[in-house]
Amino acid sequence: MATIIESIPNISEGRRSEVVEQIVAAVRETPAIRVLDYSSDPSHNRSVITLAGDRAAVRQAILALYEAAVPRIDLRTQSGEHPRIGAVDVVPLVPIEGVTMAECVTLAREIGAAVGERFGIPVFLYEEASSNPVRKNLEDIRRGGFEGLPLKLAVPGWAPDYGPGHPHESAGATVVGARMPLIAYNINLNTDRLDVAAKIAAAIRHSSGGLRYVKAIGVKLGDRNLAQVSINLTNFQKTPVHRVFDMVVREAARYGVAVLESEVIGLIPAAALTAAAEHYLQLGRFSAAQILENKLREPE
Amino acid sequence: MATIIESIPNISEGRRSEVVEQIVAAVRETPAIRVLDYSSDPSHNRSVITLAGDRAAVRQAILALYEAAVPRIDLRTQSGEHPRIGAVDVVPLVPIEGVTMAECVTLAREIGAAVGERFGIPVFLYEEASSNPVRKNLEDIRRGGFEGLPLKLAVPGWAPDYGPGHPHESAGATVVGARMPLIAYNINLNTDRLDVAAKIAAAIRHSSGGLRYVKAIGVKLGDRNLAQVSINLTNFQKTPVHRVFDMVVREAARYGVAVLESEVIGLIPAAALTAAAEHYLQLGRFSAAQILENKLREPE
Repeated sequence: MATIIESIPNISEGRRSEVVEQIVAAVRETPAIRVLDYSSDPSHNRSVITLAGDRAAVRQAILALYEAAVPRIDLRTQSGEHPRIGAVDVVPLVPIEGVTMAECVTLAREIGAAVGERFGIPVFLYEEASSNPVRKNLEDIRRGGFEGLPLKLAVPGWAPDYGPGHPHESAGATVVGARMPLIAYNINLNTDRLDVAAKIAAAIRHSSGGLRYVKAIGVKLGDRNLAQVSINLTNFQKTPVHRVFDMVVREAARYGVAVLESEVIGLIPAAALTAAAEHYLQLGRFSAAQILENKLREPE
Repeated sequence: MATIIESIPNISEGRRSEVVEQIVAAVRETPAIRVLDYSSDPSHNRSVITLAGDRAAVRQAILALYEAAVPRIDLRTQSGEHPRIGAVDVVPLVPIEGVTMAECVTLAREIGAAVGERFGIPVFLYEEASSNPVRKNLEDIRRGGFEGLPLKLAVPGWAPDYGPGHPHESAGATVVGARMPLIAYNINLNTDRLDVAAKIAAAIRHSSGGLRYVKAIGVKLGDRNLAQVSINLTNFQKTPVHRVFDMVVREAARYGVAVLESEVIGLIPAAALTAAAEHYLQLGRFSAAQILENKLREPE
């Protein structure tokens, strides 16, 4: 089976489309790499590129990305709504097929070491690759932004994992790590009451006592006059989609509200859907090798 | 996207393993063909081979199968528990990926015409490829067996679709057609009462008033002291797995019985599981293009 690692680098440029295209082109030219998507947000002044390939291809593509981005993005003159500490702000590595999280962590370390040495940029490891529990969350690493880096790097416990102990003058610092695929999943309620959506979000999310890998807020869909529970699921293997859905149905019922529908934003791993089918159909002794398409793709 | 057609030829030899292996080898030597599985049943005196490939590869592989099987299997001396009319008894073609049912029907006709001409065997088309509604079901075509063929072929309306109007002396006749993937799906009840399983089977199956693409019987699992509803689902797109499951849960409740678990026997198309997830999660606006693995496999 082919090994597939996905990476979703975020770069701090979302306005100069020619610059974004040059950086994407550098990634695309890497042998055996697929660029699945890229999109720019001008108000955030940030672009997100989605690429996939095997271990060696992803390593080479990410280094090509730094090579192209570092000389083209200068944070001393860049501004936008989105918090950032680096020209290449964050590079997550995600295991998709035939690869473990531990292998993605190893790859994150290799890339981090290479970036520190080759480009002279301080590198923080995050999430599963984190070297220190207080530096696991991206938000904590990014707090203070590019402007606060000289101070932050001097704080005890905040020496970077790789690279120099001072920021790169134009490219700042960078964050590299490994995490599970993130699922953006919304549940629309058959009501326009934002307070109900907000209460359900509070009940299910980790930060206020809910499920470990759930982030959630209540929002109002103005155009449809509906309230929505907007969810990020950060580990669908440990907190499965179907458990979140069932909990929202139950919490909504407590307010006399029904679930209208749910929706997946962007991509979802096949395994998350298969797990939901297994759950509701009460499938016993089921293995992914029984999925016809998987069987067809096995090596002989 | 690569075109994938699956075929599951059934041959009337399940005892002489060296003969089965020679026939499987002839299929396997076809370029661009995958032999996914083969198994023999000595009491049925029958073997089932599962192969997959694109249109041209499947056509070539099936003709190679006849080429190898016809001189090696003589129905005048063959006997077994399973009904059969041919040395190569039945060849279903199943659309899996990037191919329509109509294209599989065309392929069935091409293969049928070639078998009739090259091997002098009468060919009946069945299921979606059928030329006549009374000759759609395999059981109807096979009724009377090899021994009844001379009489059957003389009956008005039973001239074969291709090949001579008389049986091949040793290889009989053959059936070629196109159908949806068959899902073998069992639901175990939290009871040992066979009568409950039999009543549920009667409620859900097409033949006694149930769902259009369901065949079902109640059976007793002696080793586990459980009753089981054993189901063949012949078109999961029109009669989805989740609807069958929900109906069994509801019918079982009427007897105070719960569903213990369900199980898939052999292979299931990914789309059948995705549809179940969509159903129970009430997914709106979902497309298979949102499944990460599908995106990764798209041509650039």
